[in-house]
Amino acid sequence: MAVGDEFGLIAKHFAPLAQAMPGAFALTNDAAVIPPDEQRGLVATIDTLVEGVHYLPDDPAELVARKLLRVNLSDLAAMGAEPESYLLTLALDKARDEAWVARFASGLAADQQEFGIAMLGGDTVSTPGPMTLSLAAFGRVPNARALQRGTARPGDLVYVTGTIGDGALGLLVRQGRLSGLPERERGFLESRYRLPVPRTAVGPRLLSLATACLDVSDGLVGDLGHIAEASAVAIELNSAEVPLSDAAKLVLSDDPDLLALVLTGGDDYELAFTAPPEQAEAIAALSRETEVPIVCIGRARADSGAEPENRAGVVVRDRWGAPLDLPVKGWTHF
Amino acid sequence: MAVGDEFGLIAKHFAPLAQAMPGAFALTNDAAVIPPDEQRGLVATIDTLVEGVHYLPDDPAELVARKLLRVNLSDLAAMGAEPESYLLTLALDKARDEAWVARFASGLAADQQEFGIAMLGGDTVSTPGPMTLSLAAFGRVPNARALQRGTARPGDLVYVTGTIGDGALGLLVRQGRLSGLPERERGFLESRYRLPVPRTAVGPRLLSLATACLDVSDGLVGDLGHIAEASAVAIELNSAEVPLSDAAKLVLSDDPDLLALVLTGGDDYELAFTAPPEQAEAIAALSRETEVPIVCIGRARADSGAEPENRAGVVVRDRWGAPLDLPVKGWTHF
Repeated sequence: MAVGDEFGLIAKHFAPLAQAMPGAFALTNDAAVIPPDEQRGLVATIDTLVEGVHYLPDDPAELVARKLLRVNLSDLAAMGAEPESYLLTLALDKARDEAWVARFASGLAADQQEFGIAMLGGDTVSTPGPMTLSLAAFGRVPNARALQRGTARPGDLVYVTGTIGDGALGLLVRQGRLSGLPERERGFLESRYRLPVPRTAVGPRLLSLATACLDVSDGLVGDLGHIAEASAVAIELNSAEVPLSDAAKLVLSDDPDLLALVLTGGDDYELAFTAPPEQAEAIAALSRETEVPIVCIGRARADSGAEPENRAGVVVRDRWGAPLDLPVKGWTHF
Repeated sequence: MAVGDEFGLIAKHFAPLAQAMPGAFALTNDAAVIPPDEQRGLVATIDTLVEGVHYLPDDPAELVARKLLRVNLSDLAAMGAEPESYLLTLALDKARDEAWVARFASGLAADQQEFGIAMLGGDTVSTPGPMTLSLAAFGRVPNARALQRGTARPGDLVYVTGTIGDGALGLLVRQGRLSGLPERERGFLESRYRLPVPRTAVGPRLLSLATACLDVSDGLVGDLGHIAEASAVAIELNSAEVPLSDAAKLVLSDDPDLLALVLTGGDDYELAFTAPPEQAEAIAALSRETEVPIVCIGRARADSGAEPENRAGVVVRDRWGAPLDLPVKGWTHF
């Protein structure tokens, strides 16, 4: 009974998060109502975090809440949607006290402010096992227009926002495996792992610029592979162009073999997208306006079948143009 | 690696469930698109089942899938919404094999047929702990009209669909605690526990008849208490009018003390609602048309403050009008 009764918990900690949503009925009904909108379609996504798998048991509750929200906002951004609301389900273990729930809710409150969203509803249950947190997020797009993965075209350039690899290196830091790194860089990488920055300002602006888009959550090479396969194009990735943070550069100068992890590790939550070369100017302007770095890291070619290098998929090249052989191409859950 | 790779699993077992939804993009994108609808609002709800808490580890996968879907459809029905689509997230343990996933998907397929819905998207992760399954369901209502809990009025009659207590008694059967009961009755009660029947045909029809509505999932008395408190009315429940299955009657004839469990146990997934007396004819007609029993079990009075019996809340009376003292008033998760 550590967290008190279910209804009291919801009324005290979660109902305030739903205040801005009349259709949430202060979380007192069986479901929430999203009123009709004739102009805009709704984009819906769901993600789950499991304690010990996707975050560590001693991670601060505020950060866990914000990460859960942000991985979903990153999916919305990848589709070009403006975030609007969310449903939450918490399977809490019995040892969790109300203070943990209060801190979790305060993390949600902070990100609701930051991203202009509100809670629509949820469910709270108890679990004997690791805590399991699911969040379904909703965003808006004009009509039913949304960015997709399978619509890249031969000749498109390939872009990515922010920097790549910080999330995977941040996990190494958490695991105590980059102890030689200065504290400042360790702190930076760890915070990138624990609190991704979804590119919600960039995503909706890409609706008119990009041909295909996704968020980099399973690793850059693997995720570009999803675009390549779904679009039936070959993507050539210039590893030397992949944007790296100063901290990641420092790590790689010490251990160049970690480049494979940077290119294939997960948890970046940046956007990777394709766009025709004539959009280069507009993309540069978008980067300046939103203050989000956006760089070109490769291009898409026609899938010309015969040679393996030109089949639908991703070829990674080093700075001299030689193909890089990466041990792992992406991260899956099994 | 028991269930194979995540993407293969989704493509093979879940993408076919999303075929009817163009906005699901065959589950290949980061999120799904629900096109704009100027006439109808969207009703959204989410529920979670934890293995060992909400179902038993040896329950057939098909039934687990259908229960997960149906508890959500019951929430939609309680709001008066026609079911449309859903998002699913599965946290699978490593021991789960692909055959389990295939059976789980076939259960979803069966209920998609039965309730006219389709999958919109989802997420699959692995867990070291008990499997945890979350489903967010979406339904439609005209404009933003939906049934609520806090809108019952003094003088309303209180109704319930189907029969009450079978779910709670079915759980006793599962636990081997009603072994004296004939096999046929045990089978009936157990199936009511394992596979609830959401009242999706009744719910939307109540939009024009009921003043307040919810689904009975935490126990009849506790759930009527939610209506009473949210509406600030006193509800008088005549326990002799509460509809019971033949199997439940047989159990109670043997052990009358189980009446408290019948009235306060969970997992009924029937609708309880209030309506003014002048709707009695229309409600009887609805019951005939849908072939769902709907009976009057009590009435709502003004919350007249002074005497405890008339305060917002539920008073349960026996067949002679004497107040019944129930040990537990509802089931919460903590």
